[in-house]
Amino acid sequence: MSTSEDIVARAMLQGLRKSLGPVPVRLQVGSTTEPNVPPECVGSIRIADRRTLASLLIAPETAFGDGFSSGAIRVDGDLVAVLEALYSRHSKYPAALRMLSRWLAWTQGNTFAGSRRNIHHHYDLSNEFYKLWLDQQMVYTCAYFPDARVGLENAQRAKMDLVCRKLCLKPGETVVEAGCGWGSLALHMARNYGVRVTAFNISHEQIAYARERAWREGLADRVEFIEDDYRNVSGPYDVFVSVGMLEHVGLRNFDRLGETIYRAIGEKGRGFLHFIGRDRPTEFSVWIRKRIFPGAYAPSIGEAMSILEPHRFSVLDIENLRQHYALTLEHWLGRFDRAYEAVVQKFGSEFARMWRLYLAGSIVGFRLGTLQLFQVVFAGRECRQIPWTRAHLYNDDEQQLGKSWISATS
Amino acid sequence: MSTSEDIVARAMLQGLRKSLGPVPVRLQVGSTTEPNVPPECVGSIRIADRRTLASLLIAPETAFGDGFSSGAIRVDGDLVAVLEALYSRHSKYPAALRMLSRWLAWTQGNTFAGSRRNIHHHYDLSNEFYKLWLDQQMVYTCAYFPDARVGLENAQRAKMDLVCRKLCLKPGETVVEAGCGWGSLALHMARNYGVRVTAFNISHEQIAYARERAWREGLADRVEFIEDDYRNVSGPYDVFVSVGMLEHVGLRNFDRLGETIYRAIGEKGRGFLHFIGRDRPTEFSVWIRKRIFPGAYAPSIGEAMSILEPHRFSVLDIENLRQHYALTLEHWLGRFDRAYEAVVQKFGSEFARMWRLYLAGSIVGFRLGTLQLFQVVFAGRECRQIPWTRAHLYNDDEQQLGKSWISATS
Repeated sequence: MSTSEDIVARAMLQGLRKSLGPVPVRLQVGSTTEPNVPPECVGSIRIADRRTLASLLIAPETAFGDGFSSGAIRVDGDLVAVLEALYSRHSKYPAALRMLSRWLAWTQGNTFAGSRRNIHHHYDLSNEFYKLWLDQQMVYTCAYFPDARVGLENAQRAKMDLVCRKLCLKPGETVVEAGCGWGSLALHMARNYGVRVTAFNISHEQIAYARERAWREGLADRVEFIEDDYRNVSGPYDVFVSVGMLEHVGLRNFDRLGETIYRAIGEKGRGFLHFIGRDRPTEFSVWIRKRIFPGAYAPSIGEAMSILEPHRFSVLDIENLRQHYALTLEHWLGRFDRAYEAVVQKFGSEFARMWRLYLAGSIVGFRLGTLQLFQVVFAGRECRQIPWTRAHLYNDDEQQLGKSWISATS
Repeated sequence: MSTSEDIVARAMLQGLRKSLGPVPVRLQVGSTTEPNVPPECVGSIRIADRRTLASLLIAPETAFGDGFSSGAIRVDGDLVAVLEALYSRHSKYPAALRMLSRWLAWTQGNTFAGSRRNIHHHYDLSNEFYKLWLDQQMVYTCAYFPDARVGLENAQRAKMDLVCRKLCLKPGETVVEAGCGWGSLALHMARNYGVRVTAFNISHEQIAYARERAWREGLADRVEFIEDDYRNVSGPYDVFVSVGMLEHVGLRNFDRLGETIYRAIGEKGRGFLHFIGRDRPTEFSVWIRKRIFPGAYAPSIGEAMSILEPHRFSVLDIENLRQHYALTLEHWLGRFDRAYEAVVQKFGSEFARMWRLYLAGSIVGFRLGTLQLFQVVFAGRECRQIPWTRAHLYNDDEQQLGKSWISATS
């Protein structure tokens, strides 16, 4: 027997279905299921009440994220599979959302103070939290898997090595790193390549942790960690490197970043940028910018070139590692899920769900190519230390080892 | 004893010296040498008369090229070394030249008819001419030297293989090539990778030659050569490839090229662009566009992205091979010089000198980085055949062979 409540709920479900298209996901509000369920569904979205459903119809991106976090929206079945089904049909979002998008981008501008606030939001959550699900070295950027089976620990080590090889680091050279996380790469470069590193970061918790590591490892005389904004980098250095910071710089500061790099390495140095990018200019989803990464922007290659071209940096090599980021995130999500109870106890279940959605959604983004991961190697116009081919990245003993790294570690 | 003629000539030489800066090249007009010759000169520029010298002061780029071609300007010493000395100090040219630049770009626009005229100017000079100094397979684009000593023949073969590997060509796939030269790559792909190729070119002489080769090799059923504009490419194909054509497309036609590629491979295909590029947006020298490559433009990576980003092509790999182009050109210039008398007999000494200047100047451009050579691999947003790493480009038997190719061939 159909009550008037049922009729309204069904009409709303049909509205939601219309905007989603025929994705193989079952929709349900309260105890009401949509009239025509698509065949071979990969899972269900269960919406607690009509109010939540209404918010989904008005602002799908934020409402889905916030509803999932609060528990008002639940997903039955594999979260990644359900998100993949949703995203693969749903690439355009309406004009109203895009406007809101721009408004948010404005309020989260990366002035010096703004950057500090934005970075604090994400990276100062507590080192203990990240320890629960990152690798032992605490590398919170895309790993490099010489073979998909090598496991996360090896893949993070292989990534750091790949960066050093792409830059052809030589003992005695000086390197400046902009945005150094918990210091793993800076320490890796000093330890294994004999360079001197100056590493910048504005996250207080990360810098404290990195300094302690350098001291413990006896590397404090070769790696200096500086709690300061990348825009205060001066020079001269032989090499500029930045892994996973460009996403936090913001398009409006690209010229400042270009000037900073030029100040650091001039016309003779080499440089490296590793960043989440896009296949064309696109904002992050509103929810990601509101809840996860305030002030973040992932540029297309065309946009990123506006950092390098004004100073005539010569781009030597660009590699897209988006498949490696999907796999990295699968490792993180697996570890996160295994540590789920600990996260809930420390941060509450709303936070735990929110974070789970962010990790699962990112897997889908890199799988489908709405997110890309670019590594860009460049050199000043007077630089004459350019490798002849890229074969040295692959024909080396260390990389051959990749094969033997295939292990149970994950 | 100083005549009034000497005084004028010396003053003019001093003017030229002022605009050149302290480059280690001796300047001379008629029998008058400049008063203060820089130390350790790599060569001399001998200018026949004051009229030629005046033209050098007014429009250095065209006057130098035309004067060198006519014989009114002669260079003593190694031509490449002298040009390298000039270019390395002389990167900016005055506003007046840039205006002329724009005017030329306009008159040489790449409409369908314009392209045909521009391409005819360069590529229909006669196959016999190019046979004098290209490799046996007639590949007129940057070669790839796995080792600098492998020689030109091997390096052109290695380049064609590199392109095929970067695209992961599989037997039975269909490939469309835009701008196929004398057909070497199209034939190489069909012969060695089992693909079917449709190859476009608007140079009548080249297409005739390519068809004849396909027929002779028994590949005419697998490679179709079409004398038509790239803008008439339709589809569908699995793969789009273009080696050394983008330079002739012109910035204003980049959107058309993007549409053509999208029409050819849609959202599931793969693509490849190999082109002379820049570290930032810059026109070719006026002389090059006037005498050598009418209508040509070498884009920066940022500019080239305007072809791919509107269609959400995902950039997988960009490699800069500019050092390989400098070496390729050294081989060409060496062969050209050995065939010099034959060129003079057939085309006259003005043409021979002009062509020599173009080859020598290009060596310098690629050495100094005013010219770059980019290979871009990309894929449609729905393409799921993306190689996991780039190791397959280097760890293969064929590439290992590179080592054994080191031979006397050059």
